[in-house]
Amino acid sequence: MSPTHSGAPLPPDSPEEFVARLRAIGAAAYHDKHPFHLLMHDGRLTQRQLQAWIENRFYYQWIIPKKDALILAKSDDPAFRRAWIGRIIDHDGNANREGGLSKWLKLAAAAGLEPDDVMSMRRVLPAVRFAVDAYVNLVASHSLVEAVASSLTELFAPELMANRVAVLETLYPWLDERGLEYFRGRLVEAPRDAEFGLQYVTERCVTRDLQDRAAAVLATKCHILWSLLDAVHFAYVTPGWPPPLMGTDR
Amino acid sequence: MSPTHSGAPLPPDSPEEFVARLRAIGAAAYHDKHPFHLLMHDGRLTQRQLQAWIENRFYYQWIIPKKDALILAKSDDPAFRRAWIGRIIDHDGNANREGGLSKWLKLAAAAGLEPDDVMSMRRVLPAVRFAVDAYVNLVASHSLVEAVASSLTELFAPELMANRVAVLETLYPWLDERGLEYFRGRLVEAPRDAEFGLQYVTERCVTRDLQDRAAAVLATKCHILWSLLDAVHFAYVTPGWPPPLMGTDR
Repeated sequence: MSPTHSGAPLPPDSPEEFVARLRAIGAAAYHDKHPFHLLMHDGRLTQRQLQAWIENRFYYQWIIPKKDALILAKSDDPAFRRAWIGRIIDHDGNANREGGLSKWLKLAAAAGLEPDDVMSMRRVLPAVRFAVDAYVNLVASHSLVEAVASSLTELFAPELMANRVAVLETLYPWLDERGLEYFRGRLVEAPRDAEFGLQYVTERCVTRDLQDRAAAVLATKCHILWSLLDAVHFAYVTPGWPPPLMGTDR
Repeated sequence: MSPTHSGAPLPPDSPEEFVARLRAIGAAAYHDKHPFHLLMHDGRLTQRQLQAWIENRFYYQWIIPKKDALILAKSDDPAFRRAWIGRIIDHDGNANREGGLSKWLKLAAAAGLEPDDVMSMRRVLPAVRFAVDAYVNLVASHSLVEAVASSLTELFAPELMANRVAVLETLYPWLDERGLEYFRGRLVEAPRDAEFGLQYVTERCVTRDLQDRAAAVLATKCHILWSLLDAVHFAYVTPGWPPPLMGTDR
């Protein structure tokens, strides 16, 4: 897949080089560098703009347990499945603890939205649906190790999450701080999940071809998250053009 | 699917009402009303902006024969397939005539692009891929009549195409007019295809539920085309932010 000029395949990167390559993708393209996130973390979003992000990002939250179920379904290893199923429970909750989806709806309420309205997803922008659905399709159509690699954006999330709690508490005082449990939970979950995923991917991607494939899906995943913010920015910030309403919406 | 307040299902629209409903979707949301198209038809795009549209729209052109093959594969009627296969040949060409894809690459050349570079699709924006791939997935995951209904944006295309030839010839004099054969071809093909598709859909969508489903996929298709232009506009016009380059692009 990656011939040198002499035609011989390139040797694989060492595990350390490979991890550095994956981290470089995040350094270049993780959505913490998107102008919409920069506005958010500068306290410069209006309430409606922050609400729009919460409404649209909910669609991403919504598909996470579904894409994790697709990953479970790809595995023939009960030990892997025992580890991975925790991600679904993190989002859906169980008898003993609240899930991330429920916490996200509390964030929505804290921002002045109606949780039922957010849950209806009627305000999710079409371009956000297309990007998020692309994540589900990416996972469905790729190998298990590639699907796991696409989750490695979690490597880049903890710093963003830690900043976000402080940012939202300080810069958006109208936001009820009880709505921030989602982010506090992710501070614990994401590093644990990322560690597991990174070990899984580095142990199995031992050829240049596999390393290239893992890097490619991680890059696509970054583009998906970036495109989600592009769409929210386009509709609600600059130029501020939401998609057309349909003449026959009833 | 569409209960009245009394709980009884709504009666279907008459064929004339149903066609009017479909046309209203186009009137509200077909991409001829998108600000990027308005700029194009006002002669206000720069050469690079028009090039970017040609590069990105090529990805849409590229998947058309593939989605039409998915539609062929859904049909158990040789007569339907004999009619529909013409769409694939229109795009791919045959021994006797040039296909739309080849004509699109001539448009690219006429605009100062390298056809091989366009063909590589390396400049296709991620958000354009997500929107266009959503069209393929829409067709793959829906019934035959819904897949046909999603093609009915052709109903709205002829006027746009007729204007476009005149606009590009007049307002973009640096564009070699021999590159416009694609649009001249579509002036003949699109009305013929739309007539066939409209008859197929109206004959089969004889319940309110089926009419609602056809309207829904046509609306989604309009959102797909609209989102494609949103992405090009966002990256190349306002605010003019292309997606991040990956640190490991080699």
